[in-house]
Amino acid sequence: MLNDADDDFLSRLDLPDAAFRETTEAYLKEPRGRYHGKGRVIAPGSTDEVSRLLRACHEAAVPVVPYSGGTGLVSGQIMESGAKPVILSLERMSEVRALHLTENVLVADAGCILADVQKAAADVDRLFPLSLASEGSARIGGLLGTNAGGVNVLRYGNARAQVLGLEAVLADGTVWNGLGRLRKDNTGYDLKDLLIGSEGTLGIITGASLRLMPRPAVEGAAIFAVHSPQAALDLLALVQGQVAEGVSAFELMHRQGLDFLAESGPEVRTPFAEQPDWMVLIDLGLPAGLSPDEALETLFEAAVEADLAYDGVIARSEAQRQEFWTMRETIPEGNRRTGSISSHDVSIPLSSIPHFIEEGRRRIAKLGDMRINCFGHLGDGNLHYNVFPGPGRKREEYANQQSEVKRTIHDLVHEMEGSISAEHGIGRAKVEDLARYADPTKLSMMRAIKQALDPQGILNPGVILET
Amino acid sequence: MLNDADDDFLSRLDLPDAAFRETTEAYLKEPRGRYHGKGRVIAPGSTDEVSRLLRACHEAAVPVVPYSGGTGLVSGQIMESGAKPVILSLERMSEVRALHLTENVLVADAGCILADVQKAAADVDRLFPLSLASEGSARIGGLLGTNAGGVNVLRYGNARAQVLGLEAVLADGTVWNGLGRLRKDNTGYDLKDLLIGSEGTLGIITGASLRLMPRPAVEGAAIFAVHSPQAALDLLALVQGQVAEGVSAFELMHRQGLDFLAESGPEVRTPFAEQPDWMVLIDLGLPAGLSPDEALETLFEAAVEADLAYDGVIARSEAQRQEFWTMRETIPEGNRRTGSISSHDVSIPLSSIPHFIEEGRRRIAKLGDMRINCFGHLGDGNLHYNVFPGPGRKREEYANQQSEVKRTIHDLVHEMEGSISAEHGIGRAKVEDLARYADPTKLSMMRAIKQALDPQGILNPGVILET
Repeated sequence: MLNDADDDFLSRLDLPDAAFRETTEAYLKEPRGRYHGKGRVIAPGSTDEVSRLLRACHEAAVPVVPYSGGTGLVSGQIMESGAKPVILSLERMSEVRALHLTENVLVADAGCILADVQKAAADVDRLFPLSLASEGSARIGGLLGTNAGGVNVLRYGNARAQVLGLEAVLADGTVWNGLGRLRKDNTGYDLKDLLIGSEGTLGIITGASLRLMPRPAVEGAAIFAVHSPQAALDLLALVQGQVAEGVSAFELMHRQGLDFLAESGPEVRTPFAEQPDWMVLIDLGLPAGLSPDEALETLFEAAVEADLAYDGVIARSEAQRQEFWTMRETIPEGNRRTGSISSHDVSIPLSSIPHFIEEGRRRIAKLGDMRINCFGHLGDGNLHYNVFPGPGRKREEYANQQSEVKRTIHDLVHEMEGSISAEHGIGRAKVEDLARYADPTKLSMMRAIKQALDPQGILNPGVILET
Repeated sequence: MLNDADDDFLSRLDLPDAAFRETTEAYLKEPRGRYHGKGRVIAPGSTDEVSRLLRACHEAAVPVVPYSGGTGLVSGQIMESGAKPVILSLERMSEVRALHLTENVLVADAGCILADVQKAAADVDRLFPLSLASEGSARIGGLLGTNAGGVNVLRYGNARAQVLGLEAVLADGTVWNGLGRLRKDNTGYDLKDLLIGSEGTLGIITGASLRLMPRPAVEGAAIFAVHSPQAALDLLALVQGQVAEGVSAFELMHRQGLDFLAESGPEVRTPFAEQPDWMVLIDLGLPAGLSPDEALETLFEAAVEADLAYDGVIARSEAQRQEFWTMRETIPEGNRRTGSISSHDVSIPLSSIPHFIEEGRRRIAKLGDMRINCFGHLGDGNLHYNVFPGPGRKREEYANQQSEVKRTIHDLVHEMEGSISAEHGIGRAKVEDLARYADPTKLSMMRAIKQALDPQGILNPGVILET
């Protein structure tokens, strides 16, 4: 049984005044306004203060909800029911602690905003490759806690792949100093990767050693109009055969996303006079001596020759390349303004994607008058598959079909050996789905580990596993 | 308390005759002949047979030692004391289960030999990049269990980075089917990476989904004579600035290793008339349109200009490239024939390596007449730091100094925030060292996880953690 973070509990905390923040509305809601939480915000200013806070929560059996940038989409940062939690924000721990340039390592507080880390890397002519739409507000702790993905996973891996070491505070307040900066370290179990992606249920990440990469010498981008998702996949194989790891991103877009932008805004420039049904945004980063433009021209010729693409625009400047990316990154905002019935962040074995898209459309059509915007990180097999009301209709009209839509898509994903959460995590929103679809042995292993590391269940209760 | 795998226990096992192998000497000793084990070899022919075996061991509290290729150097596969274990070999599960070419995925039994997986990938024009000296006998299960490293980690990551999914049998015989082939899957804790590197103490890996890579279009290699380890590091930065991820391997070699080969064999061709003190072997893999030879020539000029290198040989054919690699890969055999007092597989933060090498030499010199062969995967910060008898003397003469030598080096590594096991693992040989140097919170987390997943402690007892 957990207890409220009430005035009495707060008054007993051995923390400086600065740690007690006003619990404003911003901490209690999430980007799409679908959940509303409760709790009392505490923002420790150091790892030691996090440790003291957790020890007190452990002793009093008070739940702790880690709050990072607040950009998560699965309610991992919002606790609606149960005892009133401490909302633990690391916004006061937002410094780059150290930069080891010759090692290509940056050590950051978990409260660092992603864009600040990207900038610190760029300032010394390096790349921190994690990149996603919310990078201006998402913080490192949450990005690692949820193993965030984004647009560069194809080339550089997800958040997990960027981490060399972690500092974390466990449920009982013990500090794990695992903030090494080694490329190779086989001394026991991989606790780092266990904490990454555990969504704050096994420990609170307070710092991270992050790996920096060399910046590609030359970059370029193009958008090709392709005949079908299968053609997009064949194009991916073609470009990988041509420049291997030089493909930084390979994003699928459907006309529906641009139609939503035209209908509901915000306005973006699109490169085609007439919107193609299917487009791919290809981003290349190549070593000196190679030309992305030439590579993309060669690719386009080969793609037309192989009957994969029928139109294409190659960015002729960095500004135009950024325009392509702005279009891609604005699609989610168009979706939000339109208002989906149900959104899905799924991954599918690459070769099954065309069948998934076709079969998904068939099954959704059976459910009623709905529109689908299917787009995303095709190179990773990760699609954002969102279902919307028919033209002129509102999502409220579909309220009683929401769970059926979700179930239809997730059942299909499961049949096809895919994942019901490719990059967003489980949070509280997908706990039931995980319980339904996950391998039973996996669930029992996770429960055993949770019980071993947080026996009272104070860390982010109700996330990933049912309480 | 654990019980012997005695005749009575074996007679009760519900397994086919083929699973009962003769317990030959090969299963009881290790490459350098330093440990001698005991036990009864069982080789199940399927995941289901592994499951039945483990359930029986769990019920009877009989220990299980997983035996893969038998090439491990830290006695993880050799149990000398305690109850007589089942030696679990997966040699009968050695098939490639499936090849998903458009997905660049290969699914293998854990008993597959690494060279066979490499060949299966090469046969379809792909690369399985894990590569190390023992690849002709090491098997996938052991390579993943120990998170093996090797020569291509700089570019492609260690064994962990090659895995998309696992199938494993837990201590109680339960099968975890995690054999997905997704690039992104954020559905709960990262059990895959927890099992990888756990050295058979948390579960028995029976199958793996492995990621294949495109083969570099063109490859090339060179050996440069450099002035010092610091010059080698500066050269690494130079070549990474030039070709970024195009550096596949960057290996440091010291003259001592070649002197041992000259003294004790086996004979190898070396490219320099007079051996330099320090050399680096650089291997490049580049996309079409670039020339490795040109890149290496440009690099050599820049390296001489910057006073980093003073001699160099660029491989003029694939045969000569292979000769360079044969020289590198034969160094461990020269070491074995010479006979080390103490061998160390360490990693150090990259920028501290020159100081480590200098200080290590100073401290070892104080201990007596010894020679040092320091070589390895410089690009990963991973050095094999081996200490040998002085000229004309034998390792037996140093028997009572062995632990002092080891302690001296490991203390230095620990002072410099390095790892006492970069790629070989802990096994039984380094359990005391881990207990001495590891963060106490890390040790207690590991014990809690071990207790949660293998409460009786039947899986590889005495490995990583003291029993």
